[in-house]
Amino acid sequence: MTAAAPEGVRALVFDVFGTVVDWRSGVARDAAPFLARHGAAGADPAAFADAWRRRYQPAMDEVRSGRRPYTRLDVLHRENLEKVLPDFGIDPARVPAAELDDLNLAWHRLDPWPDSVAGLTRLKTRHIIAPLSNGNIVLMLDMAKRAGLPWDAILGAEVAQAYKPQPEAYLRTAEVLAMRPDEVCLVAAHNNDLAAAQRCGLRTAFVARPTEHGPGQTKDLRPEGDWDVVARDFLDLAARFGT
Amino acid sequence: MTAAAPEGVRALVFDVFGTVVDWRSGVARDAAPFLARHGAAGADPAAFADAWRRRYQPAMDEVRSGRRPYTRLDVLHRENLEKVLPDFGIDPARVPAAELDDLNLAWHRLDPWPDSVAGLTRLKTRHIIAPLSNGNIVLMLDMAKRAGLPWDAILGAEVAQAYKPQPEAYLRTAEVLAMRPDEVCLVAAHNNDLAAAQRCGLRTAFVARPTEHGPGQTKDLRPEGDWDVVARDFLDLAARFGT
Repeated sequence: MTAAAPEGVRALVFDVFGTVVDWRSGVARDAAPFLARHGAAGADPAAFADAWRRRYQPAMDEVRSGRRPYTRLDVLHRENLEKVLPDFGIDPARVPAAELDDLNLAWHRLDPWPDSVAGLTRLKTRHIIAPLSNGNIVLMLDMAKRAGLPWDAILGAEVAQAYKPQPEAYLRTAEVLAMRPDEVCLVAAHNNDLAAAQRCGLRTAFVARPTEHGPGQTKDLRPEGDWDVVARDFLDLAARFGT
Repeated sequence: MTAAAPEGVRALVFDVFGTVVDWRSGVARDAAPFLARHGAAGADPAAFADAWRRRYQPAMDEVRSGRRPYTRLDVLHRENLEKVLPDFGIDPARVPAAELDDLNLAWHRLDPWPDSVAGLTRLKTRHIIAPLSNGNIVLMLDMAKRAGLPWDAILGAEVAQAYKPQPEAYLRTAEVLAMRPDEVCLVAAHNNDLAAAQRCGLRTAFVARPTEHGPGQTKDLRPEGDWDVVARDFLDLAARFGT
């Protein structure tokens, strides 16, 4: 399907939500008891996760457009939570703030896909590995500590002060690493993220995650660009990179 | 000498140069063959390390004062290297840039004190651990990967865009961690660093490193403030924090 990994790659940086971890199942798991407690026992927790996530890109667009200064994702998630609850018949003003704060941390408690930790552990032996996520530092840090994700450093939107797919998110990450863009490879399950990275000169690796959006997923089922690597999972990815 | 560790500390952040790693021996080790190669075989490599390091604070002062925008330490080290070489009879213009670049990476190749890795590994089981160094991200990252320092994330000057002891370096680090300052404890071998952190509301832990500056060290041999913890080394520190 693809040739060997490109030579000269020194750092692998990873999209995280969907690529490394299963956000939909994790958010649904934590939302289920919350919804039941607040009178929405009949609601589908996965539909709630989807609805919360649908507000993710529009919230970041406010920052990308410059209408709003860089605001970390934990804050955007918290605002979006208050916006989505009424759609499920819950008035956020009647929920104790501590409960909303705790549900917001569901994004810190996501489980990795079964191959993620093993693949990253192998890749780490020969490459620098770091998230290049729109998630903020403490979100990534809590997630990594709980799940055992062995990152060398936590990079991404908060370090770059820019949200993907803005070029600054990729270019500043390479700059922080003191590397040329072509020494950095983005690993992602999303074709649009890879396309933006490629336009900045980064190398690209696609790993399909066909159930990220549940059983009816229709997008990102296959590579839709000329990516440097296409791997079945993170173990296959590790093999491509010689580990 | 001191009571048990303060309760409520969730993250331990570390000064690195001198506290976690032995910069003087490491820089001297890498400088020795360089000096010999360029006609300064009689020079004392440790004196060269000291001379290079003496230009560290003045270079950061340019940034602290606002006369210069945030500039990462790798760049300041490289500039300082060119300034210090003439004191040892070497004209930097006559040295290939690649050799200067490589010597500059001596700061990425420093060895930890004998107790550092074991202590950090124990502390990591119950706390978030991260550098809060004036060193930039890739410097800390390369050092950690080579030495096996098991950081959860790499924080510090480049994330905060401010050099210690400016208050922003400590306060933005707590903010990135989404913690109150008193949930964060700075570990350092330098009383002035701890004093600045304490003024910002952080907890403080002193670990003496009596040979950081060589056998004739006269400063920072003992605690000079009301620090929350005074530990003999990182193993003692780990014991104080219950690990």
